[in-house]
Amino acid sequence: MRGREWPIGVFDSGVGGLTVLRALRDRLPEESFLYLGDTARLPYGSKSPETVARYAEQASRILVERGIKALVIACNTASAVALERLRERFGPLPVIGVVEPGAAAACEAAPRGRILVIATEGTVRGGAYERAIRALRPEAAVISAPCPLFVALAEEGWVDGPIAAAVARRYLDPFLIKEEIECVVLGCTHFPALRGVLAEVVGPGVALVDSAESAARVVAAQLAEVGLRAPAGQEGGLRFLATDAPQRFQRVGALFLGEAIGGVELVDL
Amino acid sequence: MRGREWPIGVFDSGVGGLTVLRALRDRLPEESFLYLGDTARLPYGSKSPETVARYAEQASRILVERGIKALVIACNTASAVALERLRERFGPLPVIGVVEPGAAAACEAAPRGRILVIATEGTVRGGAYERAIRALRPEAAVISAPCPLFVALAEEGWVDGPIAAAVARRYLDPFLIKEEIECVVLGCTHFPALRGVLAEVVGPGVALVDSAESAARVVAAQLAEVGLRAPAGQEGGLRFLATDAPQRFQRVGALFLGEAIGGVELVDL
Repeated sequence: MRGREWPIGVFDSGVGGLTVLRALRDRLPEESFLYLGDTARLPYGSKSPETVARYAEQASRILVERGIKALVIACNTASAVALERLRERFGPLPVIGVVEPGAAAACEAAPRGRILVIATEGTVRGGAYERAIRALRPEAAVISAPCPLFVALAEEGWVDGPIAAAVARRYLDPFLIKEEIECVVLGCTHFPALRGVLAEVVGPGVALVDSAESAARVVAAQLAEVGLRAPAGQEGGLRFLATDAPQRFQRVGALFLGEAIGGVELVDL
Repeated sequence: MRGREWPIGVFDSGVGGLTVLRALRDRLPEESFLYLGDTARLPYGSKSPETVARYAEQASRILVERGIKALVIACNTASAVALERLRERFGPLPVIGVVEPGAAAACEAAPRGRILVIATEGTVRGGAYERAIRALRPEAAVISAPCPLFVALAEEGWVDGPIAAAVARRYLDPFLIKEEIECVVLGCTHFPALRGVLAEVVGPGVALVDSAESAARVVAAQLAEVGLRAPAGQEGGLRFLATDAPQRFQRVGALFLGEAIGGVELVDL
């Protein structure tokens, strides 16, 4: 039987999901977390849906077998293509993705429903954000744009300055000028690292929606509903698993988590 | 018994190795090629040496089992960490990597031995180019710099213009100004796609060494030595295997190969 003191499992293809872990920590400081980055097989964004779903299930199983009280799919690509499958496999464990919460936040931020989703190629091709937004707001005008260079910029730590700004303008300007966009959904875990430069490029009239923050709210609500929130007042722990290159995970991951990463346990998939 | 009419196997982590296939086709138009891109598990550049070596062996085995007369390891990262293992496993089949030929060409292009190697993080960390260059020229002053954004730029097709130039200057200027570099080794299969902008940034006094061209010369020589060159005058065929996302392989791959890619067979690893 799952207990209140059990950790929340967080799964991602690599280090990007640490922006989701950061949002979860901000909202749920008393909770413990067990994070798995599938660094041996990243990135998921350019892979086929079948492959991503298979990888996501294998990785999630490791977290489930170690004992978690909820599973957060931090990876947008995996959330988009594998959420139903993971719910079937691991239910009644609560399984929360980032796409549905991000879509809900986008609908709130766009009164006229003019929404731009920026993401990896895989997430865009899958169309999950469009479907999730249209399920809530059938008349929404959703445009999706793949922005793969943002991932490389974030991993390199080039998150501000003229190169990041030029890349952001090249990706976004065509939509901002022609489409009267009201909000931009950061549909990839890496993109919050570029939030500053993206805010400058889109300007003050356009909202930036971070799926990580929205997902953290949903996790908090679902745990409260089933009575599994950790007791208030304690400080939650953090443990990290990676399927490859733990040193790189520590170094690059700290950029995304916003704090130093202690030990990383190598696991085989 | 291997025959002259058998194809040459070319293995890479994805589409980047198609620049090596292009160089091979230019030099050996009468040969047939069987290319395997391990697109399900790319990129290799950020993975550990053990993982890369295991993946390279699995992928090479598929090519060997289909019947090839030589195996070219187009991936720099795999050449750097797995070449000896592959020669042990698959010898007496000729196994040719890109690092040794690239190192030899660099020594020719740098009379005073002042060489900059640009590559992925994995290739740089492994130090294989330094070792190969110093084996030929012990007094060489070799500097290696990881340039991971070049991979993303090449895959996006942003191979010229102000963004590519700004990224190239940010990576290379510190070395060009301080180190009196004589030649820059393109130590990643993706980088020849950016050759134009790199040539501009390094200027006319610095040579660009493309490991692909050097490797093609070595392949031609080794096949001639064992009497396995295809008969002159015929036109060689091309077949492609990928471990994931064959449509993306066709689309992005054409940028690197410089010609359209017909069918791509999906294989499972």
